[in-house]
Amino acid sequence: MANSGSIRIGVIGGGQLARMMVPPAIHLGLGISVLAEAEGSSAARAADAVGDYRDPETVYAFAETVDVVTFDHEHVPQPILRELERRGVSVHPRPDALQYAQDKILMRQKLGELGVPIPDWATVADEEQLRAFIAEHGGRAVVKTARGGYDGKGVRVVSEPDEVRDWFTALAEDGHGGHLLVEELVDFVRELSQLVARRPSGEARTWPVVETIQRDGVCAEVLAPAPVANPATLEEAARIGAVVAEGVGVTGVLAVEMFETRDGRVLVNELAMRPHNSGHFSIEGSVTSQFEQHLRAVADLPLGATDMTAPAAVMVNVLGGPEEGPMPVRYASALAEHPRAKIHSYDKQPRPGRKVGHVTVTGDDLEAVQREARAAAAAFA
Amino acid sequence: MANSGSIRIGVIGGGQLARMMVPPAIHLGLGISVLAEAEGSSAARAADAVGDYRDPETVYAFAETVDVVTFDHEHVPQPILRELERRGVSVHPRPDALQYAQDKILMRQKLGELGVPIPDWATVADEEQLRAFIAEHGGRAVVKTARGGYDGKGVRVVSEPDEVRDWFTALAEDGHGGHLLVEELVDFVRELSQLVARRPSGEARTWPVVETIQRDGVCAEVLAPAPVANPATLEEAARIGAVVAEGVGVTGVLAVEMFETRDGRVLVNELAMRPHNSGHFSIEGSVTSQFEQHLRAVADLPLGATDMTAPAAVMVNVLGGPEEGPMPVRYASALAEHPRAKIHSYDKQPRPGRKVGHVTVTGDDLEAVQREARAAAAAFA
Repeated sequence: MANSGSIRIGVIGGGQLARMMVPPAIHLGLGISVLAEAEGSSAARAADAVGDYRDPETVYAFAETVDVVTFDHEHVPQPILRELERRGVSVHPRPDALQYAQDKILMRQKLGELGVPIPDWATVADEEQLRAFIAEHGGRAVVKTARGGYDGKGVRVVSEPDEVRDWFTALAEDGHGGHLLVEELVDFVRELSQLVARRPSGEARTWPVVETIQRDGVCAEVLAPAPVANPATLEEAARIGAVVAEGVGVTGVLAVEMFETRDGRVLVNELAMRPHNSGHFSIEGSVTSQFEQHLRAVADLPLGATDMTAPAAVMVNVLGGPEEGPMPVRYASALAEHPRAKIHSYDKQPRPGRKVGHVTVTGDDLEAVQREARAAAAAFA
Repeated sequence: MANSGSIRIGVIGGGQLARMMVPPAIHLGLGISVLAEAEGSSAARAADAVGDYRDPETVYAFAETVDVVTFDHEHVPQPILRELERRGVSVHPRPDALQYAQDKILMRQKLGELGVPIPDWATVADEEQLRAFIAEHGGRAVVKTARGGYDGKGVRVVSEPDEVRDWFTALAEDGHGGHLLVEELVDFVRELSQLVARRPSGEARTWPVVETIQRDGVCAEVLAPAPVANPATLEEAARIGAVVAEGVGVTGVLAVEMFETRDGRVLVNELAMRPHNSGHFSIEGSVTSQFEQHLRAVADLPLGATDMTAPAAVMVNVLGGPEEGPMPVRYASALAEHPRAKIHSYDKQPRPGRKVGHVTVTGDDLEAVQREARAAAAAFA
């Protein structure tokens, strides 16, 4: 059989995204190695190395064992990534693209240059500047740290500037001179996500636009395709996804998270340059999953079809609870009650609010599929 | 999240069947360990141990590291399996069941006891007995060694008894006193396979009956569901599958290979007690794949739904050719030409006729799906 030859993909970061890249690597016959933060990480099955991704020598040594370096997260420092490229290592997404996912202020600047619709925003250096922005935007605003946020961390909705006094204090020394990002609070009817995969050669494929439902700043559910009444909205979301993918020169999977506003506009909220929670449905719901596509894209292999495998797919996250409970017993009873649900356990120690797994159900009717997926996820929680 | 607790499944044998058990183990959050024959085996990703499955101490030491032992093949000697059970190890399928897949003469005896329709058969101890059987069955017959056959090995269609003289000589000392199995040559219109999964508790699930197309004694294609005109034929195949699964007390996945005869009967040909080539379509073609179901079954977890995910699925094997060719180049061009094909490479060194991968395509129309799967497999070969 013509096979993949010697292509070995190195993933920096040992979380569930790296873990879910392993099955398609096995099927495609690609080698995969993971540089995990710690023994016992979610991607432990594939964790060929354990070490600190902030330590340059650890990363350089790992890169020498693989053909292409990609990521489970966006936290590897730019100087390390640029040194990898200088040494001739194939890094995807490239640091030039990844910087926009690493720094929300750079991202807003770039999206502005690309002419992509985004919420009103500013950088603010102190409480007075923030107070002025809030006053101009109806008395409330969203404040974000430029770096390090995820799953609702680094994001606060505020009406008084002193609600982020700790951030101003802590950030006085950062790369933006202590500036925070502030944005208008968007009056949205739903949140959308457009996944795009793009190869170094420029070939790109998109999945159907999905709706994401957040709770407490964390993705709770994803509905595929998004139940949007107006086709123009979906077209606009797809157009934005394509413009951003090409404009930032992403390689691998890009998730463009967007708001559908009450007045019918589509505004970009966040970017992620890796497989994303809004694409987990694609493991069963698409001919080619985001994890398989990411591997193909970063290895510069031709991309797979992204048609849905069923009219509807719904993914529901399972979050850790306050206690573990009698695990094997509940696991078995949940499987018994939901034989059509596809269960994904990340093998992570449960903590309250921590994503420890997800459930996907596919079928003909979105509402029926959603009910089944919710019930199954609840049975595991 | 309620998870699988500490269940770790140990697979003896490091071929592609063990390899394809790893992805569902990752998704379900089950631990999986593989005792492979050699470094660099197909299941190398999960090969936690390398050793000889015929060496009792190697197998006992491996079993101590896992919660349940199952198999990639049927070759582990009965005394080792029975000693594992005596030591309290959970072994699935159990040796009492597995013996019927290990020994074709025991299998025919058992199928006869169960009242399942099978071809005329006999054991023969010398060329004279074989000559008599051939004469009584139209001048040709199928001779099989009781043990060790697979993929056409250990099977010969003969018209003269001296065509298996070497087998009589070599087998003079075996457990059946040198007897070979001989069967009538069945005039069939198609070969069928019924996959069944069964838990120790007795819960069982079946997949739709499939058609298998063999070339040179090796499975070439699988069509799911089998394009059988008469529903009674499918019902009979499913009935036989259920009777055999229960009758031999299998745990895990059982494949019952059958002939559909020209005169409308269904006769059992072979049994396999593990995931089987005729079930590879289920990775994409069924809500629950045979590999996931096997893990659930041997771990005594509730079984998943076995509905098809599309009206039709076709799997085509990719066999190694006489030369390797420019692998990475053909791999990429094959992916480019067939974006809807699901590619499975077993990461095995190609040898002429060796199964090194397979391709599955799903869709609405069986003939269109078959054309696409054949073209994709040809592009990789």
